[in-house]
Amino acid sequence: MASRLSDVARPRDVLMMATPAHNAELRWFTGFRASDPFPAFSARGRKVGLLPLLEVGRARAESDLDEVVDLSALIADLRRTNPSAGVPDAIVFAALARGVKRFTVPSDFPTGLFLRLRDLGLDLVPLGAQVTERGAPELFPARWIKSRAEVAGIRAGNRAACAGFTAVERVLAEAAVGPRDALRWRGKAVTAELLKEEAQVAILRAGALCDIGLIIAPGDQAVDCHCSGFGPVRAGQLIVCDIYPRDTESGQYGDMTRTYLKGRASAKQRRMVEAVLSAQRLALRRLRPGVKGSAVHEAVIAYFESLRYRTGLVKGTYVGFFHGLGHGLGFDIHELPALSRRWPHPLKPGHAVTVEPGLYYPGIGGCRFEDVALITRSGIEMLSEHPYAWEIP
Amino acid sequence: MASRLSDVARPRDVLMMATPAHNAELRWFTGFRASDPFPAFSARGRKVGLLPLLEVGRARAESDLDEVVDLSALIADLRRTNPSAGVPDAIVFAALARGVKRFTVPSDFPTGLFLRLRDLGLDLVPLGAQVTERGAPELFPARWIKSRAEVAGIRAGNRAACAGFTAVERVLAEAAVGPRDALRWRGKAVTAELLKEEAQVAILRAGALCDIGLIIAPGDQAVDCHCSGFGPVRAGQLIVCDIYPRDTESGQYGDMTRTYLKGRASAKQRRMVEAVLSAQRLALRRLRPGVKGSAVHEAVIAYFESLRYRTGLVKGTYVGFFHGLGHGLGFDIHELPALSRRWPHPLKPGHAVTVEPGLYYPGIGGCRFEDVALITRSGIEMLSEHPYAWEIP
Repeated sequence: MASRLSDVARPRDVLMMATPAHNAELRWFTGFRASDPFPAFSARGRKVGLLPLLEVGRARAESDLDEVVDLSALIADLRRTNPSAGVPDAIVFAALARGVKRFTVPSDFPTGLFLRLRDLGLDLVPLGAQVTERGAPELFPARWIKSRAEVAGIRAGNRAACAGFTAVERVLAEAAVGPRDALRWRGKAVTAELLKEEAQVAILRAGALCDIGLIIAPGDQAVDCHCSGFGPVRAGQLIVCDIYPRDTESGQYGDMTRTYLKGRASAKQRRMVEAVLSAQRLALRRLRPGVKGSAVHEAVIAYFESLRYRTGLVKGTYVGFFHGLGHGLGFDIHELPALSRRWPHPLKPGHAVTVEPGLYYPGIGGCRFEDVALITRSGIEMLSEHPYAWEIP
Repeated sequence: MASRLSDVARPRDVLMMATPAHNAELRWFTGFRASDPFPAFSARGRKVGLLPLLEVGRARAESDLDEVVDLSALIADLRRTNPSAGVPDAIVFAALARGVKRFTVPSDFPTGLFLRLRDLGLDLVPLGAQVTERGAPELFPARWIKSRAEVAGIRAGNRAACAGFTAVERVLAEAAVGPRDALRWRGKAVTAELLKEEAQVAILRAGALCDIGLIIAPGDQAVDCHCSGFGPVRAGQLIVCDIYPRDTESGQYGDMTRTYLKGRASAKQRRMVEAVLSAQRLALRRLRPGVKGSAVHEAVIAYFESLRYRTGLVKGTYVGFFHGLGHGLGFDIHELPALSRRWPHPLKPGHAVTVEPGLYYPGIGGCRFEDVALITRSGIEMLSEHPYAWEIP
């Protein structure tokens, strides 16, 4: 029964219908860049995509698909005998013609198409029913082991992030401090919006795009991790800059964070920043094949506790270190494996993970530093590189 | 039966699970900007969203939701009696607590969640089964009538597109023509990539983002409408520039096209460009409330035919005017209504549509001009404005 879900009975072949620009699994499976949805499936080890006429040529030239079916022509053919034939009929025809009737579909497969294909006779088994707060289970765990090209793409995304940091550092270094610690640069007030614009322009010129935004959050704004930052930036404020650009050429995301402060930090700020930097070094020393993602996360929690940085809910606000230490990345900004309680499994060579400890307390502000490490056979290799100097005179 | 689909029996209340950044319906329904998925539903006219703890405060402050449920807290509560409770259980609990058991879901609702919610007792009716090449049917046809704020957002998106055109025009005007019609600007070869970068930077500085790319296609590249353009741009080539930035503040898309040529056009190029410009004026004169979208499209086809610009497949390539004359836009770049055979229905006040005739012939190249018009009670109001000068000395 298709609504009884089981990984044990999973058919070997998969069927998807999604937009590669927004769906990492289809992008990975097809190797094709497109911003309109299309169906693709595997049939006895071969990858088949059904593309509209205008995309057929590009898909044949650029994708990893073994076979590109002209969807428009196929539908036109089917309409000779069935005037109401559409995409579902074309999928069924193409699948049966290649000898496959039974497919695993991802749990985010569109319901309307799922029901229609079942009515038309395909046997579809959705992958897992459990939808977590972080999304649905993945179709291709092989995707977590990065290829050389993917590693190069992540590096390129991170290089673009560095161009963003350099732009922010330049504005802060050149800014003049005025009354009430207000900052001015080239005749304008320095705001989170201005820093974002300068960073984004630099990132664009470095061949990437902040297609899902970026965070430049001054002062207590950074305590709310989902606040992307707005308004004036002042001297003496910690400024969390989390930049996750997508490399245009490869489609891979970079993801790095630096924290800055214009002027002189307070003793509390300095102690907190130093704790976060030490925690990141500690985590990087623990990362190696075989270690559990959750264990590295727990080690950082224990370290912060040992310094008496408490984590918990205070007056309705989470303070301390309340997010995961890291996550996989690639065609998606957040992938498995994770450096958190969600991944009590060993890390393997080829996993690429962010390492991003942070501390957040109203009144002091937020601090986070984030780099990306590739697990290798013997340890790790850094996929990001940028100075940690954070106090900008 | 949930797999028998009928618009007649559609329940009044709707349930969605999607990411607002990629799902125009959820963005429109909730008025909330977010790049992670979350569930939302209507219950007796009230809009309810289930957000993770870190998003609750922002959702209460910024969204149009009448009620924001703390999803993390609700799941924690449910786990006291059911340790495996997750997002599906929280949705069912929140819906039943508000007296609603039966929902329409969009046809792109995730299958895994659909099956799980049905197992848990919700009665879900997917909206339409027919998935066309252009996507699934829409949940909220009311979305096609634009509010004042949406109209202002589309205008802002188009203003950003104009900043992009201005950047392209400047490079072409300043470029020097070298041997073999190669163009150089500030010591670099002028390529589609260079023009895209200059346009994107100008668009970013105008408060928008080309989050799904842009087209700058020189010469015969433009004949393939899905080619975004690459490589050297030469004097004497028609250059189709189709720019569809998303206004960051409102989330609305602009969408405009201009065609340029550096140097002097050939007689064939000039005649084709003039035909396209005339076709656009003709279409704009026909646009008014009550006229069918398909009729305006047909009028342009007839006009091109009268000038002996033939449309059809020649040696495997579509030539002539082979795409729709226009489409709705808003939170999505392509929405209904359409100015094409897909919309044999009257246009209404509040519809915003692109008007983008084009002609494409290998050897001559492509030409397209695109503006956006709002249907008003008495006619149209332009939502885009930029000169049509296309030959750049």
